[in-house]
Amino acid sequence: MTALRDPVRLIPLLFLGFIAAGTLLLWLPIATADGTQAPFITALFTSTSAVAVTGLITVDTPTYWSMFGQVTIMILFQIGGFGIMTAATLFGLMAGRGFSLREKMATQVERDRLALGDAGSVLKMILLITVVVEAIVAAILTVRFATQHGMEWGTAAWQGLFHSVSAFNNAGFSVNSDSLMGFQNDPVVLGPVMLAVILTALGFPVMQDLRHNRLRWRRWTLHSKITVSATLVLLAAGFLLILAQEWHNPDTLGPMGVGAKALNAMFHSVMPRTAGFNSLDVGSFYDETLMTNYALMFIGGGSAGTAGGIKVTTFVVLLAIVYSEIRRQKDAALFGRRFGHGIERQALTVAVAASTLIIGTTMYLLAITRLPMEDVLFEVISAFSTVGLSTGITADLPPAGQIAIIMLMFVGRVGTITVATALALGAQRRPWRYPEENPIVG
Amino acid sequence: MTALRDPVRLIPLLFLGFIAAGTLLLWLPIATADGTQAPFITALFTSTSAVAVTGLITVDTPTYWSMFGQVTIMILFQIGGFGIMTAATLFGLMAGRGFSLREKMATQVERDRLALGDAGSVLKMILLITVVVEAIVAAILTVRFATQHGMEWGTAAWQGLFHSVSAFNNAGFSVNSDSLMGFQNDPVVLGPVMLAVILTALGFPVMQDLRHNRLRWRRWTLHSKITVSATLVLLAAGFLLILAQEWHNPDTLGPMGVGAKALNAMFHSVMPRTAGFNSLDVGSFYDETLMTNYALMFIGGGSAGTAGGIKVTTFVVLLAIVYSEIRRQKDAALFGRRFGHGIERQALTVAVAASTLIIGTTMYLLAITRLPMEDVLFEVISAFSTVGLSTGITADLPPAGQIAIIMLMFVGRVGTITVATALALGAQRRPWRYPEENPIVG
Ligand SMILES: [K+]
Ligand SMILES: [K+]
Repeated sequence: MTALRDPVRLIPLLFLGFIAAGTLLLWLPIATADGTQAPFITALFTSTSAVAVTGLITVDTPTYWSMFGQVTIMILFQIGGFGIMTAATLFGLMAGRGFSLREKMATQVERDRLALGDAGSVLKMILLITVVVEAIVAAILTVRFATQHGMEWGTAAWQGLFHSVSAFNNAGFSVNSDSLMGFQNDPVVLGPVMLAVILTALGFPVMQDLRHNRLRWRRWTLHSKITVSATLVLLAAGFLLILAQEWHNPDTLGPMGVGAKALNAMFHSVMPRTAGFNSLDVGSFYDETLMTNYALMFIGGGSAGTAGGIKVTTFVVLLAIVYSEIRRQKDAALFGRRFGHGIERQALTVAVAASTLIIGTTMYLLAITRLPMEDVLFEVISAFSTVGLSTGITADLPPAGQIAIIMLMFVGRVGTITVATALALGAQRRPWRYPEENPIVG
Repeated sequence: MTALRDPVRLIPLLFLGFIAAGTLLLWLPIATADGTQAPFITALFTSTSAVAVTGLITVDTPTYWSMFGQVTIMILFQIGGFGIMTAATLFGLMAGRGFSLREKMATQVERDRLALGDAGSVLKMILLITVVVEAIVAAILTVRFATQHGMEWGTAAWQGLFHSVSAFNNAGFSVNSDSLMGFQNDPVVLGPVMLAVILTALGFPVMQDLRHNRLRWRRWTLHSKITVSATLVLLAAGFLLILAQEWHNPDTLGPMGVGAKALNAMFHSVMPRTAGFNSLDVGSFYDETLMTNYALMFIGGGSAGTAGGIKVTTFVVLLAIVYSEIRRQKDAALFGRRFGHGIERQALTVAVAASTLIIGTTMYLLAITRLPMEDVLFEVISAFSTVGLSTGITADLPPAGQIAIIMLMFVGRVGTITVATALALGAQRRPWRYPEENPIVG
């Protein structure tokens, strides 16, 4: 069995296994609130959405599923998130090592990182961060829910735990029918959720760097420098755009005071980057705000974490190439380091493949339904980038459409890391090359 | 004056001059049908649309403009098309020569092409092709209009000439309020228009290659091989997609017989690639068909011609990189030639810059209007790629929106060739390079 010896092929099989197991559990009559068996496609959709840490739903989580069903969903996205983070980090290290040996381009900083990279310590570290962050956020939320939002302690603890685990794994599932809209005026609820999402969306390599080197910028890897600075820029840009675009919208920010406007614009600048909670009604966003969301969702979060999308580093590498071309510089460089030709082509490949998948799936869904294009495009990017936000059309998709979304969530989550790794593991060497000739482009 | 010595800067100034002159002429009271002075923005919009060979209109060409106005428009798009074709071809030759000397990568085939590339012969050749093709198409259309569509010979000749010049220059202007919808069942009208558009949309370097080497494939440049084969694939794909997507649409192909369905699907597969005539009501297209149009318009036609968009070679280079990455090959290659690193980065830069412009302008227009996203996106891609098709919202844009479209048509037409040329003219050499370090992408 080649698959069992090749970790890049093993991971998709493992995820398929988890999805299958989750589907069977959610298919049991005890998984639903009214004790009737869920349709198979509903169980499959929900299990895939959970394992892929997406958060799109065709049925309302708190009213459709029983407590057994809800706990199953939580376990599935905890396993999915942990699995993704572990697999992606190990792949990243494999790929990094492959490059550094072959192309002899490892810098001191990179060697530092690789020295930490044995599998056991990575697993332990991820487990530790998961438990610590989830416990802290769950505790804060539980106390707040119980003391400020009139929940009984048992309910508050369950809500706190579920939302904490969902936030840490960027899963986007909520046990409230309106996600976090009921807490849109409470920074003590939205704040910890945002912080957990921002932290984990950086990806594990950055978290590890932060833990070892704190804020000593000069000691960070290039990967961490790019991810953190681009994340800050994207958060600021998303915040300003959404604030400006929705300021007067009577169905979102319009009726709020300035403080609540800022809080919710910030929250919705963080969420499209992969987490998928909402404190505002996404279906009421203006079209220009939907486009801001398209961009933020497509770019996504940091590599080797629970975030989806093409990843901020991919986006930055592409921008750096464009900038260097326009400045007529031979190398694309950032923070005093130039990018290799290989990484440029990988970034391009990820972006083109993602765009193609998104456009193709959108056209397919438009052809089999008469839903509005802006909603379908939103849904498709959200599924591919495993964000989980929706304008509200998920349940209106016919079975064929739901299957397309299921496949997209799986590919967006598992396909991208395995493909990216396969690419990073390097090129075949041919003993000969074609002569070079260039067409006129542009 | 640096601008006067540097052709790359001279061209935008020349185009601005033509647009200004056209605006002043169309601003004269004799330019309008009822003899009142057109609003300045209407004259500016129409002049820009004509010089940039786009074809978007805020007023109905045959009813709003007088014969003086219509002739002015025709002269403007003839000058615009000739100017673009000449400038782009000379730039392409400059850039090609720059590369081949510096990087010593000229193949025999390329040297053949460059030997033909002195400016005088290029101008003569373009002029010759223009006159010959326009005369043939005008003659066919005139006879057909007079003998089959009940026009008087004078009207038929004017209609034949106007549509022939418009087709050859990919201008998309029509002297019928409904473009060519009145001829949707006449292959002898739609056919010559399509052929003229396909030919000129290949770009001048390909036409020159075809003239010298006929169909002897092995003697073609890589540029011609890519442009011609990709054009055929795109035409076939567009035809099949539009045929399937609109087959049952009661407002487009639905009521037609199979022959007319095929003719009109073919026509609308050719037109988004830059020409902008329509034989069907674009505003009635299903959303999935609009997406097909987005893709075809964005890709556009051949380099160094009157076609717009990112160009088929740009698109093919990007796909070839993705294919080679997925196959884990070190080089992106096609037809036995590999692409240079420089051309890969140019292609990427063109595509990213185009996408950024389109997304930004769409968000701006959505913010200042409440028009549907699918129509605004269509309009913006059509303007950037100088296609000229519209779902019908052009006249509904407020002045600020019309100015955005004016700027986009200018940038899409003049900006892209000058930027592409500036890029191709080569990189500054720094005496040092940064050390290489690569982030994890994807
Ligand atoms: K999510
Ligand atoms: K056009």
